[in-house]
Amino acid sequence: MRHEQLSELGQQLRVDSVRAADAAGSGHPTSSMSAADLMAVLMGNHLRYDFEQPERPGNDHLIFSKGHASPLLYSVYKAAGALRDEEFVTFRKRGSRLEGHPTPRLPWVDVATGSLGQGLPYGVGMALSGKRLDHVPYRVWVLCGDSEMAEGSMWEAFEHAGYERLDNLIAIIDVNRLGQRGPTRHEWDLDAYARRIRAFDWHTIEIDGHDIEAIDRAYAEALSTVGRPTAIIARTMKGRGVASVENREGMHGKPLKNPEEAIAELGGVRNLAVPVLGPPSVSPTRPFPEGPLVLPRYNTGDSAPTRDAFGEAVAAVGTARGDVVALDGEVGDSTRLEYFHKEHPERYFEFFIAEQQLVAAAVGMQARGWNPYVSTFAAFFTRAYDFIRMAAISDADLNLIGSHAGVAIGEDGPSQMGVEDLAAMRAVHGSTVLYPCDANQTAQLTAAMAAESGIRYLRTTRGGTPVIYPPTESFPIGGSKVVRATDDDQVTLIGAGVTLHEAIKAADRLAQEGIPARVIDLYSVKPVDAETLRTAAEVTGRLITVEDHHPEGGLGDAVLGAFGDGRPVPRTIRLALRTMPGSSTPDEQLSDAGIDADAIVAAARKLVGRDG
Amino acid sequence: MRHEQLSELGQQLRVDSVRAADAAGSGHPTSSMSAADLMAVLMGNHLRYDFEQPERPGNDHLIFSKGHASPLLYSVYKAAGALRDEEFVTFRKRGSRLEGHPTPRLPWVDVATGSLGQGLPYGVGMALSGKRLDHVPYRVWVLCGDSEMAEGSMWEAFEHAGYERLDNLIAIIDVNRLGQRGPTRHEWDLDAYARRIRAFDWHTIEIDGHDIEAIDRAYAEALSTVGRPTAIIARTMKGRGVASVENREGMHGKPLKNPEEAIAELGGVRNLAVPVLGPPSVSPTRPFPEGPLVLPRYNTGDSAPTRDAFGEAVAAVGTARGDVVALDGEVGDSTRLEYFHKEHPERYFEFFIAEQQLVAAAVGMQARGWNPYVSTFAAFFTRAYDFIRMAAISDADLNLIGSHAGVAIGEDGPSQMGVEDLAAMRAVHGSTVLYPCDANQTAQLTAAMAAESGIRYLRTTRGGTPVIYPPTESFPIGGSKVVRATDDDQVTLIGAGVTLHEAIKAADRLAQEGIPARVIDLYSVKPVDAETLRTAAEVTGRLITVEDHHPEGGLGDAVLGAFGDGRPVPRTIRLALRTMPGSSTPDEQLSDAGIDADAIVAAARKLVGRDG
Repeated sequence: MRHEQLSELGQQLRVDSVRAADAAGSGHPTSSMSAADLMAVLMGNHLRYDFEQPERPGNDHLIFSKGHASPLLYSVYKAAGALRDEEFVTFRKRGSRLEGHPTPRLPWVDVATGSLGQGLPYGVGMALSGKRLDHVPYRVWVLCGDSEMAEGSMWEAFEHAGYERLDNLIAIIDVNRLGQRGPTRHEWDLDAYARRIRAFDWHTIEIDGHDIEAIDRAYAEALSTVGRPTAIIARTMKGRGVASVENREGMHGKPLKNPEEAIAELGGVRNLAVPVLGPPSVSPTRPFPEGPLVLPRYNTGDSAPTRDAFGEAVAAVGTARGDVVALDGEVGDSTRLEYFHKEHPERYFEFFIAEQQLVAAAVGMQARGWNPYVSTFAAFFTRAYDFIRMAAISDADLNLIGSHAGVAIGEDGPSQMGVEDLAAMRAVHGSTVLYPCDANQTAQLTAAMAAESGIRYLRTTRGGTPVIYPPTESFPIGGSKVVRATDDDQVTLIGAGVTLHEAIKAADRLAQEGIPARVIDLYSVKPVDAETLRTAAEVTGRLITVEDHHPEGGLGDAVLGAFGDGRPVPRTIRLALRTMPGSSTPDEQLSDAGIDADAIVAAARKLVGRDG
Repeated sequence: MRHEQLSELGQQLRVDSVRAADAAGSGHPTSSMSAADLMAVLMGNHLRYDFEQPERPGNDHLIFSKGHASPLLYSVYKAAGALRDEEFVTFRKRGSRLEGHPTPRLPWVDVATGSLGQGLPYGVGMALSGKRLDHVPYRVWVLCGDSEMAEGSMWEAFEHAGYERLDNLIAIIDVNRLGQRGPTRHEWDLDAYARRIRAFDWHTIEIDGHDIEAIDRAYAEALSTVGRPTAIIARTMKGRGVASVENREGMHGKPLKNPEEAIAELGGVRNLAVPVLGPPSVSPTRPFPEGPLVLPRYNTGDSAPTRDAFGEAVAAVGTARGDVVALDGEVGDSTRLEYFHKEHPERYFEFFIAEQQLVAAAVGMQARGWNPYVSTFAAFFTRAYDFIRMAAISDADLNLIGSHAGVAIGEDGPSQMGVEDLAAMRAVHGSTVLYPCDANQTAQLTAAMAAESGIRYLRTTRGGTPVIYPPTESFPIGGSKVVRATDDDQVTLIGAGVTLHEAIKAADRLAQEGIPARVIDLYSVKPVDAETLRTAAEVTGRLITVEDHHPEGGLGDAVLGAFGDGRPVPRTIRLALRTMPGSSTPDEQLSDAGIDADAIVAAARKLVGRDG
């Protein structure tokens, strides 16, 4: 498009941003107006996208890392002919696809944004897919705010993209000088951004973000830059074009007071329809070749760490499923994800110790149709919790495997122990939370989780645990295993992972004392096997839950959740970690936490009234 | 000390690191050996510290951001005469203060480390304290690993320290080339680190980290650098001094196989006692002037957002308590922490949108004796969850205030909604979790939380809620309020925050239907008022919990937790957010989530058997 038309288009995007916020009575028009020219030139002359077929592999990807500029994004969609005006004005209304911040309820949105500092790391994942998985020449454009440059996750992304030489990734930084509360740290010091980003091995271009010609040149330069990602650092004005809000503090996140006047000042409503360039016709090279699923098999009676079984199983899943990729946070030797690397190096991604970028890249890859297995220590997924929360809003399908769970790791001490992970992961909407106790179960669940939707979390253990199930046993997600049961059971012991073995030991001892105890292996912590728990409650009337986790939000709460619909609730004793652990052996840790067989036996005696 | 002695001291630190790991049977000797010369020169010639009086205000602070090098840190303490050899060899044993990763169980450790990328952000908080609160010329030395340079939190710290011109902060980067799994991203490319750090306005010095003279000069240069923090980027060798492990992959986190040979190769055991320089005698200017506590007062029947009440109350607490400081993540206008800024600008710290650094700085400040109030949106504390988890291990006293909780925020949509925060915060060991429903309650709790220990979390609401309590009412932490009660109550409705008001509405309607309902305001979600809940259970036999949060780990789980000791458990229906919200009005959100008065009434009818 010609520059005069693009200028008009920029004004149209501003007008529509004002209109959207006015119709909603809320939203961020001024943050949209600063980037309107940047988006006008992009969609008019550079973006390659088929809005009728958003799944076309050659389509570029456009991510609004500054998700609060959603009025601008929706104005872009409208100008592209993808949204009609009737829907456009449903912005922020009940049931509308046009949410306050973008989500994939709209087919042109790959990933939800709105928590700042996330769009660029997602873009890294999508650009990596293009280069190393899809082998398709799409480009990933990420519109970033200047405030979010303070987020460390942005610098994880700059570092990783520079290192991977992702010249298909273009960051457009809308330096409008004003954050929510007031001026940003660097205001209009474009060089402050540029020299930082250049130090991370990016190409940088500094421009006036309202100069159509400069913007057009900058995009062309970015597209012709080889071997490095490009950041276009654009000096803009928040609220550009409307004097009452332009470059003024205190105007963040509010509709304009006099929308009609503002629209008139912007030259009135326009209805330009932009002929967005189509994508190249390409065929991605996917999936990778597939073979039969041959899971590892372990002999009952042997001992094996569940993390080892995970590593062996995920390598086998990679052989069976061509869509599976693996992402490591420089702990693949410990999590055993490295076993995947040995079999499938072309699908293994090392993110070094940058857990936010690690999870974000997986979100980006799954948006491209890949099935990622992401692993680090259970404790260190807390570093990426905001990304996991947002991944659920993106409706992302991810396999997260947290190793070294619980006090059972022993000597390394509390900084390395995942003892809040079940609570955090259960609270994520639509999540699946699995905690296997033996190697064959781990292998089965590792394969099964790939077929689930949403955030699937598998918790593994550092040390060896006895193999109690044959390799032929199946473990449906949402199920459980009744490991011990008689019709006379007086109490039900419910554990998972390491505590399941303590429960079995306790049941054996209780049987000798004449207290028959049912044992349930609650390997699926979410969804939970409510039916089996309810039956056990009816038969035994008493439950003991035991978990290697703090008492809040974990297995004990999951069990009681099965009785949250008004039905009778059994008497329950909950055993969990209630102290701050230090360093000691795994057995000492379980004993000190009061989650070993001794503690279970004592609780059972108390519950059945046999404690002296 | 002379350089030959320092060289000997470096060997002693290596030998002792080998000995510690050997005694423990685990640990990270090779990661300790790379930094031994760096620490020998520091303690011999530059650190100012009185090990007998760790609380002296002039003492420097030494933080091992690479916490796994704990054998080296404990070897330093031993060489300083602070640890005797009998205790030294208890490393990683049950009950020992010498944990696998350092914690403040040792009086010379300010903050727990072990989750990488955290020590430097903590150091920023301590250095800021020195400059802007304590006004004391201590220096903060942070030993960093090269692997952790991939963590975004490090770059939040570099950015903030450069911006604040913290020339009392020195980062020592131990570039030993090898991470846990293999080579680091930049290996021995010192300039890759230096040019990035310089871009963030630091002074940088590149040295051979085994050249005693170069190290000595670098420290002197750092101490004479004014107006900028300094990073010393040191090329080192992992496992330095023992040929079988030096600069070899696969040697991370393992004791040496032949410790006697290694010790001989290092020249044998030494017992140098280092006369560490004493600190200057100084008196910190603290606390700030104090006045009476005059909390804001709200009239019952009015409506006010609890976030507003928090803002007004925290400003008042700042007047009453000279130790209180406030930390904002560039949302102070929304969280209302800005009200503190107006009253006490000298104690207000703006961290821009960098939640990890935000929380870490508070941890650093409380280690210096300050009482920090930290606020951002409830949703965005998930960004700092690993720091909050680690803060508990540091035994830190922090006030965290999460605003904009729940679907009740309305149109902004799920990215801005804290609906996992109760689960995450409850699972933190020793935490306090508060969720007030009205302005007077919020004011009281805002003041009360300052006197608690551990992580104190207060959840506030965006929109107005009715003021139901007089300003004279008191709200002990761990308590609750019975808002409606008769002897004939057939069901108990338990809410907090916005849902408490829905519960009251529901109770009024149920009363008209002849179903008397008790209403409990569970403002203290942790610790929970078990006694009141148990009494209500005995009287009414039926509970309904209702919360603006996902069903996992929140208020409903907290209520059931009061019945986890084997006592009878009442029938319970739990109302919570079970869907992914979109954008709509606050009232529509509560209705769609099934947590409004209508839903409570329907649940109560069902529970008492009156649902038709």
